[in-house]
Amino acid sequence: MMNFDFKTLYLVNPCPVSDDSYIRSVHAASILDNAKIFSSFNEACKHIDFLVATSAKETISEKKHLRNPLYLNEFSDQIQKSEGTVGLVFGREDYGLLNEEIAACDLIVKIPTSKNYETLNLSHSVGLVLYSIFSAANKTPEKRTPLDMVEKNHLYDAFSDLLDAIKYPEHKNEKTQLMFKRLMSRSIPSKWEYHTLMGIIRTAAKKIRQKSKK
Amino acid sequence: MMNFDFKTLYLVNPCPVSDDSYIRSVHAASILDNAKIFSSFNEACKHIDFLVATSAKETISEKKHLRNPLYLNEFSDQIQKSEGTVGLVFGREDYGLLNEEIAACDLIVKIPTSKNYETLNLSHSVGLVLYSIFSAANKTPEKRTPLDMVEKNHLYDAFSDLLDAIKYPEHKNEKTQLMFKRLMSRSIPSKWEYHTLMGIIRTAAKKIRQKSKK
Repeated sequence: MMNFDFKTLYLVNPCPVSDDSYIRSVHAASILDNAKIFSSFNEACKHIDFLVATSAKETISEKKHLRNPLYLNEFSDQIQKSEGTVGLVFGREDYGLLNEEIAACDLIVKIPTSKNYETLNLSHSVGLVLYSIFSAANKTPEKRTPLDMVEKNHLYDAFSDLLDAIKYPEHKNEKTQLMFKRLMSRSIPSKWEYHTLMGIIRTAAKKIRQKSKK
Repeated sequence: MMNFDFKTLYLVNPCPVSDDSYIRSVHAASILDNAKIFSSFNEACKHIDFLVATSAKETISEKKHLRNPLYLNEFSDQIQKSEGTVGLVFGREDYGLLNEEIAACDLIVKIPTSKNYETLNLSHSVGLVLYSIFSAANKTPEKRTPLDMVEKNHLYDAFSDLLDAIKYPEHKNEKTQLMFKRLMSRSIPSKWEYHTLMGIIRTAAKKIRQKSKK
C-alpha cells in the first residue's frame, strides 16, 4: 500500500494485528496503526461511494452479472476519472469473496492470469491492483465527478420503479436491476448524465402510471 | 511465474530448495523441479540474448547511465516485439543487484513506486513485472462482444422513441440522445445486456402509447 501511495486500510474480522504484523510491514507501520477494524463487511462499506470487488477467477458466462468483470488495466484507466471514496475489496486468502459480498459491489475487476493457474495469493493480488492504479494515475487528464451514494441509490430506485411500472417479470427483476447497476458502474456517469437519465426514467414511469389510473 | 505463464527459473547461489519451498509453491512445483541452479551470475547469463535488470529504486541522475531506466509499462509493450531469449534479473531480497550486475544487463526496468516508499520486496517485484508483461501480451481480452452497428442503432432508435413517447422537450432531445450514446459506449454492453435494455425501453414506450390511445 505504501509503495503505491494508498493510505486507508479497512480490515473486517481480521486475525490479531501482532508484533509479527509490524515486522512484516517494515517501513509501513503507520498503515497498520491507522487501520480501521470492522466486525462486518456491511459496516465497513457504509460510507464508501463505489465498491470494487477484485478477483482472479474468470467469469463463467456473460449472463451471470455477478461476475461480469472489467479487466484490471481497463479499470485502472477508468477509475482515474472518478472522485469520491472508492473501496477496493479483497477476499480471504483461502476462499476469496462470498457471492453476497460480490453482489454488494458496484463492479468486479478481474486480474488477468494464465488459464493454467488462475489463483493469486492475497498479497500479490493487492500488489498488482495497487500498482496498476498507481501507474495509470501518471497518465490521466480530466476527471468526471462520479455519482455519490445517495444519487446512485436514487438512480437504481428509479430504475426499479420503472420495472414495476412496466410490470417487468418478477423472476427477472433482481437480475435486471443488478445488470443496470453494473452497466452504470462501468460507464461512470457524470452528474449531468445522471440527472438526465433520472428525468427520463421517472417521467416514463410516471406517464405509465398516470395512464393506468384513467 | 505460473500465474503468468513463465516457465524457466534460474537461481544463482540460492539457499537450499527445501520442503518449505515446495509448500509455498502450491501448484507450481514443476517450476521448482525444473529450476536451473548456477554458481555465478555470469554463468547463468551465458546463453541469454537480452538481459534486463529490474529495480524499484529511482535513478539518481540521467547522467548515471547505469540506472537510467525504462518504465515497466513501456518495457512490457516494447518487449512484445522482440525475439530471442530474454532474461529478467531480480536482485537479492536484502540488497538487490550489485552495480556490476546492473552494468552487465542490456537494460534497466524501473517499477514505478511512491517517492515515499520505493523498496518493494522480491516476491512482489517479480509478481508485478511478470503481470505487466503477461497483460501486455494479452491486451484487453475481448470477453465482452460489443454491439455491432445494427444493434447499436436499434438501441439508440428505441431510446429516441422513448423520448418521443414521454414528450421529452425538443430543445434537449439531440443532446440527450448523444449522452445516451456516450453512456452506452463507455460501458460496452454485452449482447445480453443489450437485449434486456431494449426490452425495457420498448415496453415502456409501448405502454405509454397504449395508454395515450385510450
